[in-house]
Amino acid sequence: MITATLLVSCPDARGLVARLSNFIWSHNGNIIHADHHRDQVRNCFLSRLEWELEGFLLPRESIGPAFSRLAEELDAAWQLSFSDQRRRLSIWVGKQNHCLLDLLWRRQAGELRAEIPLIISNHPELEGLARQYDVDFYHLPITPATKAQQEERELELLSEYQIDGVILAKYMQVLSAEFIARFPRVINIHHSFLPAFPGANPYQRAYERGVKLIGATAHYVTEELDAGPIITQEVIPVSHRDSVGDLVRKGRDAERAALSKAVYLHLENRVLAYGNRTVIFD
Amino acid sequence: MITATLLVSCPDARGLVARLSNFIWSHNGNIIHADHHRDQVRNCFLSRLEWELEGFLLPRESIGPAFSRLAEELDAAWQLSFSDQRRRLSIWVGKQNHCLLDLLWRRQAGELRAEIPLIISNHPELEGLARQYDVDFYHLPITPATKAQQEERELELLSEYQIDGVILAKYMQVLSAEFIARFPRVINIHHSFLPAFPGANPYQRAYERGVKLIGATAHYVTEELDAGPIITQEVIPVSHRDSVGDLVRKGRDAERAALSKAVYLHLENRVLAYGNRTVIFD
Amino acid sequence: MITATLLVSCPDARGLVARLSNFIWSHNGNIIHADHHRDQVRNCFLSRLEWELEGFLLPRESIGPAFSRLAEELDAAWQLSFSDQRRRLSIWVGKQNHCLLDLLWRRQAGELRAEIPLIISNHPELEGLARQYDVDFYHLPITPATKAQQEERELELLSEYQIDGVILAKYMQVLSAEFIARFPRVINIHHSFLPAFPGANPYQRAYERGVKLIGATAHYVTEELDAGPIITQEVIPVSHRDSVGDLVRKGRDAERAALSKAVYLHLENRVLAYGNRTVIFD
Amino acid sequence: MITATLLVSCPDARGLVARLSNFIWSHNGNIIHADHHRDQVRNCFLSRLEWELEGFLLPRESIGPAFSRLAEELDAAWQLSFSDQRRRLSIWVGKQNHCLLDLLWRRQAGELRAEIPLIISNHPELEGLARQYDVDFYHLPITPATKAQQEERELELLSEYQIDGVILAKYMQVLSAEFIARFPRVINIHHSFLPAFPGANPYQRAYERGVKLIGATAHYVTEELDAGPIITQEVIPVSHRDSVGDLVRKGRDAERAALSKAVYLHLENRVLAYGNRTVIFD
Repeated sequence: MITATLLVSCPDARGLVARLSNFIWSHNGNIIHADHHRDQVRNCFLSRLEWELEGFLLPRESIGPAFSRLAEELDAAWQLSFSDQRRRLSIWVGKQNHCLLDLLWRRQAGELRAEIPLIISNHPELEGLARQYDVDFYHLPITPATKAQQEERELELLSEYQIDGVILAKYMQVLSAEFIARFPRVINIHHSFLPAFPGANPYQRAYERGVKLIGATAHYVTEELDAGPIITQEVIPVSHRDSVGDLVRKGRDAERAALSKAVYLHLENRVLAYGNRTVIFD
Repeated sequence: MITATLLVSCPDARGLVARLSNFIWSHNGNIIHADHHRDQVRNCFLSRLEWELEGFLLPRESIGPAFSRLAEELDAAWQLSFSDQRRRLSIWVGKQNHCLLDLLWRRQAGELRAEIPLIISNHPELEGLARQYDVDFYHLPITPATKAQQEERELELLSEYQIDGVILAKYMQVLSAEFIARFPRVINIHHSFLPAFPGANPYQRAYERGVKLIGATAHYVTEELDAGPIITQEVIPVSHRDSVGDLVRKGRDAERAALSKAVYLHLENRVLAYGNRTVIFD
Repeated sequence: MITATLLVSCPDARGLVARLSNFIWSHNGNIIHADHHRDQVRNCFLSRLEWELEGFLLPRESIGPAFSRLAEELDAAWQLSFSDQRRRLSIWVGKQNHCLLDLLWRRQAGELRAEIPLIISNHPELEGLARQYDVDFYHLPITPATKAQQEERELELLSEYQIDGVILAKYMQVLSAEFIARFPRVINIHHSFLPAFPGANPYQRAYERGVKLIGATAHYVTEELDAGPIITQEVIPVSHRDSVGDLVRKGRDAERAALSKAVYLHLENRVLAYGNRTVIFD
Repeated sequence: MITATLLVSCPDARGLVARLSNFIWSHNGNIIHADHHRDQVRNCFLSRLEWELEGFLLPRESIGPAFSRLAEELDAAWQLSFSDQRRRLSIWVGKQNHCLLDLLWRRQAGELRAEIPLIISNHPELEGLARQYDVDFYHLPITPATKAQQEERELELLSEYQIDGVILAKYMQVLSAEFIARFPRVINIHHSFLPAFPGANPYQRAYERGVKLIGATAHYVTEELDAGPIITQEVIPVSHRDSVGDLVRKGRDAERAALSKAVYLHLENRVLAYGNRTVIFD
């Protein structure tokens, strides 16, 4: 079954669910999932509608243009996607392979609706893993002196490979504001339970604080470090027996779980970011 | 803000979201939450719609009659409720007070939209607690010989107190099929992670099996013991250090958490039971 | 079965487990639980030993004096307790009753080995609850002007009621450094997952940050606000549907769970605080 | 730091902790972890002691013989291991790769103290993955007619590769009682929260029952199917939106987490099985 999905956000008003669902019904669509949320604080309406394409009277390429007229009336931001489309993701890594391997395995297992044609790293270590999964690998080392130039090169590669989104899978480098302005569709995994321990060395600091739970946070990247809209958070219990090394080991499980779930939700069009927050339609 | 909520289930068909939301919009309702689910295996559609009553053009008492015409066309089962209504619950208990106290406290704290005018027990122990919270308490001991007669008395009390639903909060008695046929709106807490350990002495059996997690299950009661539609399930880790007594102690936390959450969801009209399963609209 | 428990911390050295267990064996004690931890970073040894008193050849009052000679050799801090002793706790509250009620209920249910003879509050609201559980209640309002004087009064009450430990169960007041210096055995519940959201209004700030999990932290109180040794942490998932009010409601469950578990562990002599961290022997 | 670890179980008696720790101290050993448990129901004592080898006065090969004399006095079963030893594991699989990949990755990441020289499967699908990680792979298809003969071949391979333990990582075949009698060191992952849904098709049955949590159980294999001592259990929430396929997908995460954690604990000598239960020293 092939489906179309609309993610819609707009100022709240009466009749929005009716107008959105009438749009689908008027073209004979059969909704299989619809979920609507009103954010009362910001007075905005957020919606996800998914319907079967079979029997839908508009051809696929006409749905967007047709919907855009309604969207204009509603002053809505929206995004249309189809379940047989594969987004094209680029995964960026450092030396650690656990998040990358988890994403590659899930794609191979059919869990992630995506192509992953491009891996970029500022270190050479994971080239072998990229090759095992038959993905192109670029080693682009970053120094303060070369950062601007390398980001230029990265943008070229994203364009060349027609990449829809970048996943920072323990990339351990901060993207420049310029980069994010030019390519804003980036998900990062931060190795702590934000807003606890933003920035560097969260496990060392968690150890020193003597916490009883550690965590990981997947979020969209914005200009401000570790402050973008949160998609998923995972926690894992720790004890006095755990050294910093144990926290790092246990944390890997929280990191890959939070990141893979965030990427999954993102690819299923179940995440709607607005302001510095997200609606998760699951 | 006072809201109306519709829970609707019907055979799947095209246009259901549109027709339901049009009903609300046509009377100038503003939806604040709508969530729709299609069960593909059973080909049925399940929906929850909540909208503000302020500005709605139908008076409250006309909504049901108006909707019933649409419901008939859709062959739908439905239930209408208003957020300022308080359901009237009766809680049935044995000797253990943890679930009862948790429910009474949550009602007092304003978490539960309900009146609790009636407590029934086959033991006298909890009369003092009932009195503290100013709830009428009836001690109706059950023996095999008196069961039918006592259930008759219970049904009278439910009628007299205009009870909408019964919560078995560690009542430890099986209701007869006749009772359930005559009063089907009953939620039970079972002290295991169903379908593990149905029936008696689940903690003893969990201890003997050496499990590493114990649980509790809140479900609607049906004729078949511990087989009704599950609303919530909770688990708690246990270890080799835990005796049967420790499992009972830890299990109390799982029991009251599962039951209170189930009652909360039920009162918020977020549970739709169909067949032996539930949709939870949260 | 009555048991004795020793909590011991000292600089690491060879033979510590042997010397401690020989002390018990030499007096014919039967150990039922012994757990030892070495903190390699701080080079210290931390131990909990629990043994049956029946058949132990030292009378109860001689155990401490006898052990103190060994402790001196080991340069050890230690604490001896007996399972039939009831510590005397004072619970301090503000207007919210959920943590207090949970502690009172658990004590009544026999979960907590403690007497709770004294409740202190800077508000009058919870006097009725104190009375229901037959506990003395003192209303001692705090203003900046009266704080020093009221803390003096509080210390008098703690002395008068022979209190061993204070539980801040949503007291919402910061204790002065002077108070803590004079009465250091205080456990607090903080309504966030520390070190996230220390200080005031954590739920409001969690809402604004758009987190997907909220938490609570029970810790020993030190001079520095929300920085003392952590005993327990609990988290609860939240979603975009949750308002600040919902976070507060859900957070209550995390708060009472974290606090009650911390008090339980403390009373079972399963917590050993050293520096700004704890060993939990469970 | 290289350590020695003793796992000991024996009938309970006075002085056991002292006698065990004296054994270590008398040879100048420094204990870094010791944890003792008394099972009061079965009146048995279970203990784990780990100490530094550096400075220990017995040469490594003499420790076992020296300890065996004490063990005999205590009527103890025991097991000695060294932290620089790598156990040799064989992983057995069917067609699904998630548990195998997770174990191979963890070994490569240094999390698991083991060699994995041998993979056996009754299907050919995972040969490529075995090759990527440079592990010998044998395809030994099983039919009722060939089962006895293939198990003979498997036992030969286990012997030839000097295998210490077998991990059934979704092998989906029942081992014969004869096999288990001859090679009893086998860990299995069952794809349900035992004792719920033993046997075949647990996800289908979980879907039909409408449960709100699914799980996985890692256990030692015994003659009776899915009834051996449980090591770890994991659960994952599910909802009405999840199809059987979604349960299978989500369940993979529970399965690999439970199995990998069980194998980790087993390799760290933190599991002591006795009767149909385990002590986990963590």
